[in-house]
Amino acid sequence: MPEKLTIAVDGMGGDTGPDMVVPGLAISLERNPDARFLIFGDEALLVPQLDLHPQLRAACELVHTDVAVAMDDKPSQALRRGRRTSSMWLAISAVKDGRAQAAISAGNTGALMAMAKVILKTMSGVDRPAIAAIWPTLKGESVVLDVGATIGVDAHMLVEFAVMGEAMARTIFGLQRPTVGLLNIGVEEVKGLEEVRTAGRLLKEANLPIEYCGFIEGNHIGQGAVDVVVTEGFTGNIALKTAEGTAKQIAEYLRAAMSRTWSAKIGYLFARGAFNVLREKMDPRTMNGGVFLGLNGIVVKSHGGTDGFGFASAIDLALDMARNDLVARIARDLGKYYAQEDQAVQIEEKVVVS
Amino acid sequence: MPEKLTIAVDGMGGDTGPDMVVPGLAISLERNPDARFLIFGDEALLVPQLDLHPQLRAACELVHTDVAVAMDDKPSQALRRGRRTSSMWLAISAVKDGRAQAAISAGNTGALMAMAKVILKTMSGVDRPAIAAIWPTLKGESVVLDVGATIGVDAHMLVEFAVMGEAMARTIFGLQRPTVGLLNIGVEEVKGLEEVRTAGRLLKEANLPIEYCGFIEGNHIGQGAVDVVVTEGFTGNIALKTAEGTAKQIAEYLRAAMSRTWSAKIGYLFARGAFNVLREKMDPRTMNGGVFLGLNGIVVKSHGGTDGFGFASAIDLALDMARNDLVARIARDLGKYYAQEDQAVQIEEKVVVS
Repeated sequence: MPEKLTIAVDGMGGDTGPDMVVPGLAISLERNPDARFLIFGDEALLVPQLDLHPQLRAACELVHTDVAVAMDDKPSQALRRGRRTSSMWLAISAVKDGRAQAAISAGNTGALMAMAKVILKTMSGVDRPAIAAIWPTLKGESVVLDVGATIGVDAHMLVEFAVMGEAMARTIFGLQRPTVGLLNIGVEEVKGLEEVRTAGRLLKEANLPIEYCGFIEGNHIGQGAVDVVVTEGFTGNIALKTAEGTAKQIAEYLRAAMSRTWSAKIGYLFARGAFNVLREKMDPRTMNGGVFLGLNGIVVKSHGGTDGFGFASAIDLALDMARNDLVARIARDLGKYYAQEDQAVQIEEKVVVS
Repeated sequence: MPEKLTIAVDGMGGDTGPDMVVPGLAISLERNPDARFLIFGDEALLVPQLDLHPQLRAACELVHTDVAVAMDDKPSQALRRGRRTSSMWLAISAVKDGRAQAAISAGNTGALMAMAKVILKTMSGVDRPAIAAIWPTLKGESVVLDVGATIGVDAHMLVEFAVMGEAMARTIFGLQRPTVGLLNIGVEEVKGLEEVRTAGRLLKEANLPIEYCGFIEGNHIGQGAVDVVVTEGFTGNIALKTAEGTAKQIAEYLRAAMSRTWSAKIGYLFARGAFNVLREKMDPRTMNGGVFLGLNGIVVKSHGGTDGFGFASAIDLALDMARNDLVARIARDLGKYYAQEDQAVQIEEKVVVS
């Protein structure tokens, strides 16, 4: 690993592209003065922005391309039009070539995942990649995966997600033994989807160095019941978006309630500091960044609609994982799991033979 | 339909049983003075509670049984131990026999669904029942189903859920043409689970009197994007519980923020009225009650941990649906759907033959 970490940046991704990306890089550089950025995108749009941030200018290299994946391109379209030329493709390729230790994009999620799979490939043994999100909880933060990469999974994939999510939680939360739970519709072992129940049995019986805590339900996520919440992509995506929607809804109720009467407005003035604390707690920008796990390289997806502050959070996340060499950790952990599985199969075969 | 509606009540259901059920009935009776209640349960526990509410005493009939389903009984255990004798079984049977127009229980959900299926049977043509919840939104309320009755569904079941949920929304919200959406992980037609996409096509192509609005995502539920949100039980249950958990989490953040400083505490005093409005908005007790749809009779499940106020909301819901004869409405609507399906099959067959 080089002394200075380099992050490959899709300069054109996101609803506003360079106008959001460059300020985000500048904010992150202040917090991570050793970082280097390799930015891909349209010079005509990026240079004027970079000129506003001389310190950042010195810490980055700009590679021009005028091809950009559109936010509404289908993954297949993006692969056809943007292969080898688009800012997104080039950023991911920089990770594959070792010129960067992680890639980041605020572009189209489907296209980013499709390109990442083509360029980086899934890790040896991994069936399907996952997207991990960081979920704010009453106890701090949890890793929740998969939030939309893989629809429909079997029990083995869920176990792989558990191993990968656990490695990520160790890396970014600095925990020795993060706790892991499977998302289900009841905590009893007889309940829920067949695959989830089987995964629960595998995690319990496997002699993995994982602190598996059993099933958890939707309302336990926000309580911080476990550090890593494992689920399939369809359900995980809906849970994540439902939580975001509920937070917005309550913020709206609160705003309406606090402006209803004069007395409430006066109360708001007195409690302004408290409301600011609450706003910070609920600010989705501080938790920005979905991490692609299960590939031979780190790719972080930022929300497309975020601002520089939010993009900076996602860069911090990418740096954190690159610094701790997340991919190597996951490879090591998965290696142990697969070795055990092989052993189990051999024992079973012996039993059958004898 | 008799002039006075009678609700059959499982007097023993819920974490505290009669201590919560009887006060709940008393509250609901005040709001619905014409209602009658047929209560099943242990006289020794129910009579002392009823003696505290003479008006309720006059409006109800008590049938003694000392068998009660435990909150942690498995459905199979409950069916074995509680068949024909338990307060839960007897309450549902009263609907089947026409002695009541709806049944309500705050007991064990799995047991209640298992007994309801055995006693009432699913409606002609319906494959699987659903549990519908009422979800508070920025626009008012929406019906969300299924929230946990049926795990894994095909496209036809989703269409049946749409028809049933739409009938319920017309009944309880008094809407002429409630809007219906399918919960998915993207609004584009190419995204999501195969079954959900097929159901989307069926709802679009079928000539049903349903205002189908396409796919919605998790964050659209709380916005009130549609009046009826249709999904499969595993995902629906997790979405519902995730929203509940998020609401609790934010309430906790708010409580902590408002007691952090003196200034915030003073602000709280001024804004107390506003906070009370907010608390009411977020009070899960006002939205209590899961409705079992697709059976030959109305069964409402109340939260087991609610209080009398919450139980009364669930009774109101049961009365509302009984008053509007929800089951007949659903039967009529489903009849139209099945007739169209048959026609489609016949046309297809003709095409094949010719």
